[in-house]
Amino acid sequence: MRIGVLGTGMVGRAIATKLVELGHEVRMGSRTAGNEVAVDWASAAGAGASEGEFAAAAEHGELVFNCTAGAASLDALAAAAERNLAGKVVVDVANPLDFSGGMPPTLTVANDDSLGERIQAALPGARVVKALNTVNAEVMVDPAGLPGDHVTFVCGDEQGAKDEVVALLGELGWPPDRVVDLGGISAARGTEMYLALWLRMMGALGTNRFNISIER
Amino acid sequence: MRIGVLGTGMVGRAIATKLVELGHEVRMGSRTAGNEVAVDWASAAGAGASEGEFAAAAEHGELVFNCTAGAASLDALAAAAERNLAGKVVVDVANPLDFSGGMPPTLTVANDDSLGERIQAALPGARVVKALNTVNAEVMVDPAGLPGDHVTFVCGDEQGAKDEVVALLGELGWPPDRVVDLGGISAARGTEMYLALWLRMMGALGTNRFNISIER
Repeated sequence: MRIGVLGTGMVGRAIATKLVELGHEVRMGSRTAGNEVAVDWASAAGAGASEGEFAAAAEHGELVFNCTAGAASLDALAAAAERNLAGKVVVDVANPLDFSGGMPPTLTVANDDSLGERIQAALPGARVVKALNTVNAEVMVDPAGLPGDHVTFVCGDEQGAKDEVVALLGELGWPPDRVVDLGGISAARGTEMYLALWLRMMGALGTNRFNISIER
Repeated sequence: MRIGVLGTGMVGRAIATKLVELGHEVRMGSRTAGNEVAVDWASAAGAGASEGEFAAAAEHGELVFNCTAGAASLDALAAAAERNLAGKVVVDVANPLDFSGGMPPTLTVANDDSLGERIQAALPGARVVKALNTVNAEVMVDPAGLPGDHVTFVCGDEQGAKDEVVALLGELGWPPDRVVDLGGISAARGTEMYLALWLRMMGALGTNRFNISIER
C-alpha cells in the first residue's frame, strides 16, 4: 500500500526502510522538500521509496506514520494538513519527550492527557492509533531479534483502524497474539508514561534493545 | 527482625502476614490504635504480630514498610514521626493514585516528581527505597505464583539500604537476579508512572495477577 512516514530520525528511517522491503510505496516526509537525510534515504532504499514535505508524504499515504519527535509532532501534523489525513489511519509512534531539563527526559504531556490524545483532538477526521512507542527502532521492525514472547501495544478510538494497524504490525513481525489492545486513545497515557520506566530500565540494563513480556 | 508495616489495606495485610510467616516480629500501624482491621489481623496472624498507631509501628520497626494509600502516605508518615524513622530503611510500596476523576485513576504526582522522592524529602533522616509497587499484593508476596522470570524494581539514594531491601525481597521469593536496581530515588517516577500502563494492561488482560519480564 501507499504509506507516508513523517520524520527522518532513527524511528522514521527504520520503519520506512522496513516498509519498502515489504513492498510498500513509502514517502518519507520532512519539514522541507529535499531534506538531505530524506533524499539519501530515498536514494538508498530504492524502488518504492520517495520523499517530500510533510504534506506530500501525508497526501501520498493511504496510511501515515507519525515518527517525528514528540515535542514537534503537533506542528508536523499541522504542516501535513488535516485534509491530507482525513479518513486515514495515523499511526502515532512518537513519545512526547522533553530533554530541556537534562537526562532522563520528562514528558511534555502526561497523567491527565497524552500526545496520542492531542493528535486525535487536533485531527478529528483522522483515525489515530498509538503503537510501537514502547520499544526502540530496531525492535519495532525486528521483534524476532529479541527472544521470548515480548509484546507491543495499540490503542485508539476506532476498532477498524486498530485492526489495520495490527495487520501491518504482523507484516513487521509482531504476531497478533503479542499485540495488546489497551482500548481507546486515552490509553496512550499508559504507553507514553511507561517511557519514564523504560528510560531507567535502559540505564540499568545498559542497552536499549529490550522489551517486556507479560507473565500471568 | 522487627518490622513496622504502615497501612491496613490489602497490600499492608499481605506483606505483614508474609513477614510474620517468615518469622519476623511485625507491628501493623494505622491512624488509630485499636483499628478493627489491624486488631483482627494481629489476632489471626498469631505470634510475632501486633498492631498500634503509625508511630508505634514505626518505633517498633528496625525497617518500616509504607503500605498506606499513596494519596495519604505523607500524612501517615508524618504521624509515624521522623524521630521513629531516622536511620531506618523505609520501603515505600505506595502508588500516588488519584481516583477523584474516576477510573482509571491518574497520579497525584508524576513526571517531574514522585511520591518516593517526596517521602525521602519529608524524611531526610530515613533511607527510603521504592519497591514492589509495580505488582499487586498477591504477586508481591508470592512471585512464584506466576510463571517466568518476571522482575521487580528497587530505587533509592543509598546502596546499603537497597541491599537490605534486596535481601528482604529474597525472603519474599524474589531472587536477586530478578530485582532491577533503577538507581536513585528519582527513578520512583518510572515505577510510579508505569502504573498508568499497568492499570490498562489489567483491563486488557482481565486480571491484576500479572507481571512483566525483560527480554533482551
